[in-house]
Amino acid sequence: MICKTVLSEISHIVGSGHLISSGDKLAEYACDSTKLSSMPDAVIFPGTEKEISLVLMLATQKGFPVIPRGAGSGMSGGAVPVKGGVVMAMDRFDHILSIDRDNLIAKVEPGVITAHLQRAVENVDLFYPPDPASIEISTIGGNVAECAGGLRAVKYGVTRDYILGLTIVLPTGEIIKTGVETMKGVAGYDLTRLITGSEGTLAVVTGITLRLIPKPTAKKTMIAFFTDVRSALQAVSDMIRKKVIPTILEFIDRSCIECVREEMDIDIPRKAGAMLLIEVDGDKELAERQAERVFDVCGREKSLSFETACNNEEAERLWAARRNVSPSLYKLRPDKISEDIVVPRSRMAGLVTYLGELSRRYGLPVPAFGHAGDGNIHVNIMFDNNLPGEPENAHKIIRALFEKVIGMGGTITGEHGIGITKAPYLEMEIPRAGIELMSRIKKAFDPKGILNPGKIFNLSGQVSGIKESGKR
Amino acid sequence: MICKTVLSEISHIVGSGHLISSGDKLAEYACDSTKLSSMPDAVIFPGTEKEISLVLMLATQKGFPVIPRGAGSGMSGGAVPVKGGVVMAMDRFDHILSIDRDNLIAKVEPGVITAHLQRAVENVDLFYPPDPASIEISTIGGNVAECAGGLRAVKYGVTRDYILGLTIVLPTGEIIKTGVETMKGVAGYDLTRLITGSEGTLAVVTGITLRLIPKPTAKKTMIAFFTDVRSALQAVSDMIRKKVIPTILEFIDRSCIECVREEMDIDIPRKAGAMLLIEVDGDKELAERQAERVFDVCGREKSLSFETACNNEEAERLWAARRNVSPSLYKLRPDKISEDIVVPRSRMAGLVTYLGELSRRYGLPVPAFGHAGDGNIHVNIMFDNNLPGEPENAHKIIRALFEKVIGMGGTITGEHGIGITKAPYLEMEIPRAGIELMSRIKKAFDPKGILNPGKIFNLSGQVSGIKESGKR
Repeated sequence: MICKTVLSEISHIVGSGHLISSGDKLAEYACDSTKLSSMPDAVIFPGTEKEISLVLMLATQKGFPVIPRGAGSGMSGGAVPVKGGVVMAMDRFDHILSIDRDNLIAKVEPGVITAHLQRAVENVDLFYPPDPASIEISTIGGNVAECAGGLRAVKYGVTRDYILGLTIVLPTGEIIKTGVETMKGVAGYDLTRLITGSEGTLAVVTGITLRLIPKPTAKKTMIAFFTDVRSALQAVSDMIRKKVIPTILEFIDRSCIECVREEMDIDIPRKAGAMLLIEVDGDKELAERQAERVFDVCGREKSLSFETACNNEEAERLWAARRNVSPSLYKLRPDKISEDIVVPRSRMAGLVTYLGELSRRYGLPVPAFGHAGDGNIHVNIMFDNNLPGEPENAHKIIRALFEKVIGMGGTITGEHGIGITKAPYLEMEIPRAGIELMSRIKKAFDPKGILNPGKIFNLSGQVSGIKESGKR
Repeated sequence: MICKTVLSEISHIVGSGHLISSGDKLAEYACDSTKLSSMPDAVIFPGTEKEISLVLMLATQKGFPVIPRGAGSGMSGGAVPVKGGVVMAMDRFDHILSIDRDNLIAKVEPGVITAHLQRAVENVDLFYPPDPASIEISTIGGNVAECAGGLRAVKYGVTRDYILGLTIVLPTGEIIKTGVETMKGVAGYDLTRLITGSEGTLAVVTGITLRLIPKPTAKKTMIAFFTDVRSALQAVSDMIRKKVIPTILEFIDRSCIECVREEMDIDIPRKAGAMLLIEVDGDKELAERQAERVFDVCGREKSLSFETACNNEEAERLWAARRNVSPSLYKLRPDKISEDIVVPRSRMAGLVTYLGELSRRYGLPVPAFGHAGDGNIHVNIMFDNNLPGEPENAHKIIRALFEKVIGMGGTITGEHGIGITKAPYLEMEIPRAGIELMSRIKKAFDPKGILNPGKIFNLSGQVSGIKESGKR
């Protein structure tokens, strides 16, 4: 609990109109997309770097937690104030400061919604590729904190690949510029990429310099159904061997297909065991040539059905299949835990087979969809929190899944981060010496441990003071 | 000085056949490409991670410096043992462990020559794009240590963009795997990119997992001469506006042209004030279409002359112009300091104009060439070490150059690193709070400061115990 005197000091810094310390509005800042929940003492909406610096200095002096927050759309509990304290909502840092067409650079504040940024740069014929599924609600600051990935990563990379420099405020109050505003730069340690993906535990980001690329002029969207996952993934391998790196290479498995079958405005072959949504881009000629190569690889002979969109409207119709998957899975069970593991692409078929084994062993549906181009699979463990045994079995599936993934040379998180949900499992992937090194780095930034405490590092396996509420 | 007992302990760890502690052979490890020189106490050639771990533990215990070294081709003194100690030469870690065509991944040891790696992956129709000028002699481990760039960075990025994971040995002896062997991964802090570009000051790299891409099937090489740098750089902007991102976009200025004019087997217009070497790649059709767009932008009307290579032999002839620049500059003066500053692309013409002012003000030639696509300019300050005033003026030019570059929103090093040559200037770019944070990170890795001491951080501006020998 933060005492009244300290709250009033904080209020003095940010202005009383930018602090909430009670009521329903405060409760909104207790949880994120995981629906895990823990009440903060207060939420503030700072308006300047100076205010952030002063609050952080006060926090380091008095020892209260500060939890930076974007839109609260995180998938691993990164913005949940598990130890109470002050949620620092970056809502007022919502300006696109500049889009520089000569140098292909944008400067933005962290509270800008990523989709707004994308539309703004596309309006001047440029392109910011990272596209996490949350793009219409998540902020670019949140994307930096989690190193968000997305569907286009197979061709264009992830958030990290587009961050040139940052302005950060350290937990001890210093305001620092990291990185560069140019295409290259190697002066000193790479603080920019160290902050990217650090889940709000090292510094508060107040400014972001992004690299942009020219906007591709054309794209072609295709959909193909296969008898099983193995043949779909074989098609993926064949495309890449033919030097086609699609922009989008999404797959959904049989169980997902059955969930969306009714709702979709496309013919789904009865025997369909896997679907690929494929998009290629470039200039018009290149996009068409690549689409031809995709057809060569998974055209009608090798797939059950294959369709190419002739216009944007048709492309949207094909996209609907992929977009409807995640919500439609609740037909299977009322509760969901969604993991974002990654395995080497060549091991994907093996992993999906293993998911079938887990599903049978524990009696729960485990539908999978995801990014077939980069091996990043969203594994959905469906259960009913109110049925005895099901939550326990769901957690057994998670552990077995992670063991398998790590054994295959993969990782337990491709784009959601560790946060609190994966903290108990981190040591399965990163040996103790690595976690200890990370803890020392944390201390180099945050000697009193005030910034987003309880995240990433949690060797005890217990999350204290947290409530599960509703669906995850 | 390391005492005999400790040297014998080291010898016991690596084997006496893998330690040199006297003679001419030892002197070879005193310097790197900067020609700055400082004698080590010994050089060792460890054969296993275990040996490296034991030597580092001993160093942390006894307090002697360890300097990791690849080929010694660094441009900022990173491998010079400025405080004596043990040079750890990674020559025996020279194996390409695997090239995985299904997952587009290579696993290599750090002592592999980068060009050998490139040829090996190209033999199986894959591509490792980073191509520092030193590629035929430098090692991939050295490239990781410096985050080497190169000519193709404008399209394909730098070393950092291709490193997925590392095996490292900490100065305290722990062996850790960082990062992933998959296309995505965000578990814990990004140690992989923190190590990349850390100039051998944080850990010894013993294994590298690299991302590969499909090899482009075709390229087109072009050369164009312009009346001045401004019109050449205008052409560069126009290309990028037309969505052509060339693989190569090298420019050389008037002074460089005059140095290579005699030696080159191409017609150089008498009034030529700037040259662009341009290469585009892709599949055959795309490369040709892009070459047409390049011609539209800087064809015969807008340039003094324009030539497209019809085959590899002709391309090599065009390349010779760019390749001959660096050595031919010694026609101007016997000594050279080469900087690798970066400015936003739109500021390049302004910077080159400023170089002319500096040249006139200090009476020294300052020819420039470099990577026009990413604003990374190699500024060459030519002087005669034996002429009174010239070395001093050269250093005045460096400081004035760095001030200008930073004022333009640029960086003092795009690909060479800070090492010892730029350490006195680091605080011009990175504020004290940032350098102090980096020092704390250094301490989190290396509590006793035994790994490559005296590099990057040198706030005193003095380098002790160092000799300048011959040309730089």
